[in-house]
Amino acid sequence: MKKISLEIGKSIPRFDAFAKVTGKEKYASDFWSPDMLWAGVKRAGVPHARIRGIKTDEAISIPGVLSVLTSRDVKGTNRQGVVRKDQPVLADDRVRHCGDPVALVVAKDRETLAMALSAIELDLEPLQAVFDPEKALEQGAPLVHERNLERNLLLKGSLETGKGEAAFEECDETVEAEFRLPHQEHAYLETEAGWAILRDGVLEITASTQSPFRDRYEMAEAIGFDMHRVRIIAPYCGGAFGGKDGITVQSLLGLAALNNPGRPVKMWWSREESILASAKRHPARLYYKLGAKKDGAFHALSARVYFDTGPYDHLGGAVMALGLEHSGGPYRIPNANLKAWSVFTNNPIGGPFRGFGVTQANAAMEQMVDLMAKRVGISPLDIRLKNALRRGDRNPAGVTLTGSTGIGECLKKIPASRLWQERETWKKAAPLYKKRGAGLASAMQGMGYGPLIPDTANAKIELNRDGRFRVFCGVVDMGQGNASTYLQIAGEILNQDMSGVELVLPDTARTLPSGSSSASRTTFTYGNALIKASKILKQRLLEKAADLLMAKGSEEMDIVPGCVRHMPSGKEMPLSALAGILSEAERTSVARYRTPSAKESPASDPLLTLHGIPHIIFSYAAHAAFVEIDTLTGRIEVKCYLAITDCGRILNPQAFEQQIHGGIAQGLGYALCEELKVDHGMILTPDLGTYIIPTSMDLPDMESSAVELHEENGPFGLKGAGEIAVNGPYPAVANAIADACGIRILEGPMTAERVLGALNALQRGEAQ
Amino acid sequence: MKKISLEIGKSIPRFDAFAKVTGKEKYASDFWSPDMLWAGVKRAGVPHARIRGIKTDEAISIPGVLSVLTSRDVKGTNRQGVVRKDQPVLADDRVRHCGDPVALVVAKDRETLAMALSAIELDLEPLQAVFDPEKALEQGAPLVHERNLERNLLLKGSLETGKGEAAFEECDETVEAEFRLPHQEHAYLETEAGWAILRDGVLEITASTQSPFRDRYEMAEAIGFDMHRVRIIAPYCGGAFGGKDGITVQSLLGLAALNNPGRPVKMWWSREESILASAKRHPARLYYKLGAKKDGAFHALSARVYFDTGPYDHLGGAVMALGLEHSGGPYRIPNANLKAWSVFTNNPIGGPFRGFGVTQANAAMEQMVDLMAKRVGISPLDIRLKNALRRGDRNPAGVTLTGSTGIGECLKKIPASRLWQERETWKKAAPLYKKRGAGLASAMQGMGYGPLIPDTANAKIELNRDGRFRVFCGVVDMGQGNASTYLQIAGEILNQDMSGVELVLPDTARTLPSGSSSASRTTFTYGNALIKASKILKQRLLEKAADLLMAKGSEEMDIVPGCVRHMPSGKEMPLSALAGILSEAERTSVARYRTPSAKESPASDPLLTLHGIPHIIFSYAAHAAFVEIDTLTGRIEVKCYLAITDCGRILNPQAFEQQIHGGIAQGLGYALCEELKVDHGMILTPDLGTYIIPTSMDLPDMESSAVELHEENGPFGLKGAGEIAVNGPYPAVANAIADACGIRILEGPMTAERVLGALNALQRGEAQ
Repeated sequence: MKKISLEIGKSIPRFDAFAKVTGKEKYASDFWSPDMLWAGVKRAGVPHARIRGIKTDEAISIPGVLSVLTSRDVKGTNRQGVVRKDQPVLADDRVRHCGDPVALVVAKDRETLAMALSAIELDLEPLQAVFDPEKALEQGAPLVHERNLERNLLLKGSLETGKGEAAFEECDETVEAEFRLPHQEHAYLETEAGWAILRDGVLEITASTQSPFRDRYEMAEAIGFDMHRVRIIAPYCGGAFGGKDGITVQSLLGLAALNNPGRPVKMWWSREESILASAKRHPARLYYKLGAKKDGAFHALSARVYFDTGPYDHLGGAVMALGLEHSGGPYRIPNANLKAWSVFTNNPIGGPFRGFGVTQANAAMEQMVDLMAKRVGISPLDIRLKNALRRGDRNPAGVTLTGSTGIGECLKKIPASRLWQERETWKKAAPLYKKRGAGLASAMQGMGYGPLIPDTANAKIELNRDGRFRVFCGVVDMGQGNASTYLQIAGEILNQDMSGVELVLPDTARTLPSGSSSASRTTFTYGNALIKASKILKQRLLEKAADLLMAKGSEEMDIVPGCVRHMPSGKEMPLSALAGILSEAERTSVARYRTPSAKESPASDPLLTLHGIPHIIFSYAAHAAFVEIDTLTGRIEVKCYLAITDCGRILNPQAFEQQIHGGIAQGLGYALCEELKVDHGMILTPDLGTYIIPTSMDLPDMESSAVELHEENGPFGLKGAGEIAVNGPYPAVANAIADACGIRILEGPMTAERVLGALNALQRGEAQ
Repeated sequence: MKKISLEIGKSIPRFDAFAKVTGKEKYASDFWSPDMLWAGVKRAGVPHARIRGIKTDEAISIPGVLSVLTSRDVKGTNRQGVVRKDQPVLADDRVRHCGDPVALVVAKDRETLAMALSAIELDLEPLQAVFDPEKALEQGAPLVHERNLERNLLLKGSLETGKGEAAFEECDETVEAEFRLPHQEHAYLETEAGWAILRDGVLEITASTQSPFRDRYEMAEAIGFDMHRVRIIAPYCGGAFGGKDGITVQSLLGLAALNNPGRPVKMWWSREESILASAKRHPARLYYKLGAKKDGAFHALSARVYFDTGPYDHLGGAVMALGLEHSGGPYRIPNANLKAWSVFTNNPIGGPFRGFGVTQANAAMEQMVDLMAKRVGISPLDIRLKNALRRGDRNPAGVTLTGSTGIGECLKKIPASRLWQERETWKKAAPLYKKRGAGLASAMQGMGYGPLIPDTANAKIELNRDGRFRVFCGVVDMGQGNASTYLQIAGEILNQDMSGVELVLPDTARTLPSGSSSASRTTFTYGNALIKASKILKQRLLEKAADLLMAKGSEEMDIVPGCVRHMPSGKEMPLSALAGILSEAERTSVARYRTPSAKESPASDPLLTLHGIPHIIFSYAAHAAFVEIDTLTGRIEVKCYLAITDCGRILNPQAFEQQIHGGIAQGLGYALCEELKVDHGMILTPDLGTYIIPTSMDLPDMESSAVELHEENGPFGLKGAGEIAVNGPYPAVANAIADACGIRILEGPMTAERVLGALNALQRGEAQ
């Protein structure tokens, strides 16, 4: 560990690898003490009902049960949510989906807790419910929120550029299609978990969360406690993907701890509870129409996208806005009319998920591109190259791209791959009853919070008394490895190897607010702040050492591992000695960075701006999927996968590759097998035995490379890489299936059943 | 107090004025507690002797005496000194001047202390002593330090430019003269005082000092205690003028406290002890020869200057170096040969004193200028104007002046004064038996430590939780008012009035090292550091507030008293609210500033560089004294005084004027009445009844103005103003006396006796 270099551009092993693989790293679910209590909730179990009564007598009389709490015991607003605060901590008058929590129990152990939860009887009066987002917008539909001014509409948005719809008249060719994209469960390794204690008037919560600083005030307001007396500690997450961006266990744990002061309370959702209660990727219905000139130049686009956000906002408005912004893909389309709706239903909650609405829009748009390619008789690659955005172009959302714009470069690298070059030979070599196809997809993903919510990070770095640099990281590492990259950044600037740096994970009492771990922003935003802070500290140390060694000035000094050196004489001063002389204020440096946002506003509803668009910095990718279809069973096997990414300069190739591979794996799951079956609001796939995620055995060989365009705003030229890869697999696979068999599966996931159905229909000569 | 503006350029009343005039401000001598002990020292009383024995039995047996300590009780090096550590804390084998401390007594009260000190018997074997600095350099002179390699020479230096001495052959006119400049006692209001306690392993010393951070390691080494466990607190000084730049009571107090742990020990020198033991302005002998062309253009200069540093270095080498550097005055002299010596004697200790060697050199050079003016028949003003340095010139020390160089501008403003315009009329109106004269002097003073010792300051500023800004000041305010100017600087940048700022005085445990309060450097160096720190903090607060108020960016924000305001909307966030949200690291800013030094080195001994020359930034002044001489008694009265100063931009006109007036008063005392009579090393003027300093009644009306050239390195364009004014009065008065009566008093001070003697000699036709 000692001598591991931290140079930017090198594959640095994760700082947390050893602690994690040996089980030493403590996740939120790992906290334990002999005197701890367990908290859990009774959930509604029905999709829509009025609460007539909650019988808790029996539960509270069970020995070992300390509290049974209902909404009446919540002192605050009892409402949480990042943008619109509409989700109750504990349901008061109504339940709006099956997973709504109704009563909170605190008990001495898990068995007693389970008994008490079963002993609670809910007296619920069923209400008419709504499960179809388009029907939900119709007059007379049952209302999810009876007092919402716009009935079941959470947010709608539209973007129009050029002549909009009218431009279709100028097109030589037009293609139209409708797509249905499914729910997706985050399925993180670590389910929702936390640990809380009220001690000396301070409510301390350790939780698996992506947003500790925001949790603090969101939770404090909801449960009625002084925010300044709340401390949130965020260990590494065992996966999150957006599902822990916002409150999960925090308010419930806070409530439990407030009612049981002095004793630690633990909450840890089972997998089943997690699937029942947690937010999912929004299902979407997408109606697309794309027009082009004869030569394949895109000329007009119309998109209508409906997102089913379930009963609560939970960033559903923002997800819709981002989907809308990206609905035209990374192409020049001079005329566009784009519309989207986010709609309340009594289905499971829709919420943030890697890709954040872009995944769904891209799945549709990239299939439209292939449909148009076929129509005008150009190859899928050529039509993409022809229309790919370049720096200086306006994107379909109407924003002029002033930063690095590498979609063209990504696409141009596709033919360099042998996989691609030899695809026709490979396709022809398909075994009996199998068909092979290759499909392309472009992808783009905006970085950061967009214009209105300041997208900032505050870095802090300290030279310890022992001569090591301690990075105070305010943004969560949910498993993606950004924390290690921070050490690499500090190590590069301060010229230390891994033995010279250490990390403090997010903790509202120790680290500085740096926003959520989301929106492909962590390394970009915190990284930039950390670069500033490290440079300030470095300069300060050089100056101090210059003073102490009586050098002519800091320009004669440099930092080497463990020491500051006077370069002309070679005299060295150990960092520990320097630290011993400096006051804490001198050994500590803080810096803030704010991500730039677009200066143009697409002509649209200002509410859209509030929900985070438009963006100005985007990552891009070109993907190719190589699939083999068993025409007898419909089974699809992705044999190989190619991803070329423009996310700026790669700081750590290994960490980059992990992000890309992970995104592809999650995208392939979404495309092919992850099917959350929901019937009348009830989840029929309540566990990982029925909701199938791909294992490593299901995944293809992946070939990943990058076009390392330098993004001038980025830390060392980087752009975010956390989400981009999840947007390619769905359409790449869909296009590959079409290439293999001439069928197009319009509703996801593209399971064997649906493929076989489509193959049969094709055989029967039915129209798709 | 509340609404007092802190704008730069305004006369701001001192922050400390109210506390000082009401007696609430605690000086080092004001500390008191019921359990405190008193410490005092037995001093040698003879100028040079070997210590055969110290009888302490009787003293220690006096009830109430806790310790009687001698050099054997000192665990450290028992040596102190800023550059050369040659001064014992307690004399060991020898005493080298009458004030040398031999034994330290700690007693329960002052009376017991006095009894014990009298009861100590010293067995001293007298040694041959040396009192004349020139004789001290002769072979066979008694040695002050028997092991000093260069015998009685502490340091010599020489600077040569152009052809040096050889250029006198090219001169049309040459004038020569010898001057003897006297000792000067600092005579601060507050004599040396301090308060120490050893508590929990930490030695805490509160002392009247100009250099708390340096004291810490100087003292720690001398008494053998871990520097990191020493805390020095430096309250406002009641005057210092250089006399508290270095150790006075600190080591003795430290020793007393180490031997009496847990109880506070106080030491407070009486006026008589202060005059006996403290350092003085160095007496100097100056041999000058100035050559000029017919038109009055200076062409060659030779100077030989001997400084009597007494028995110890105590910055005597640095004082000599500075005197040498300035010995040619602010003039273009293409050829110079300058030499100086700092010599050990058994006289009182010579040490730092406002002007720092420049006062003596300038007193000689400015009289040479008048002698030459008379010789070539040009007015004293014209000859100065003709030869005055301009930016880009090389000064007599060989350094090219790249900064603001306003001596010409100062001189040009002299004729604008009515005092000057009407001087001939005024002179003619002299009463019977009185003669009047007007005399000019230029002056210059280099700023800062010079090239080798990094001249740095470290500022710290914090936004308190209550919304006020706290300036942590690491450099002492010895009465000159720099601390108030720091608040003004912070207030200007952070747009606060006086109610919005507060101050922490120097304290090695709370504030950051910022060097000594000396060398005209405090406001320049710490001020520059504070500007940086304040700007950093301001920007951080604007950014934070922008984030919190969801503004587009910090450019939309500004600070107003008590608040951060979003300018477009007028929305305000109280600083206290902002402070409540920020962590301490974010609310705190530190910055370091290092004063630039000359990049050229005059061709000379590298030892000179070690002693702080050359400088690159200088303040300048032109002074005029208007004197009236009673020809019957020799009494001299300075009737009016004019000072025009170039110390860059004036930040606080009132504070500036106080510095100039104070410098002139001290300079006039040096010129006219302050005579430390020393006979064979014994001070014959042991108190303020015999050593006469001017009172306000003795001082003339003073007219002070400034040419506010902008110094680009300075804080808001400032240069130091603390010393420059002390350098003018001596030569201005001497030149005025010559102007009035045709006599020149070559030995100072220029008392009535000496004037009368010279008048009588003139009458007798004797040569001067």
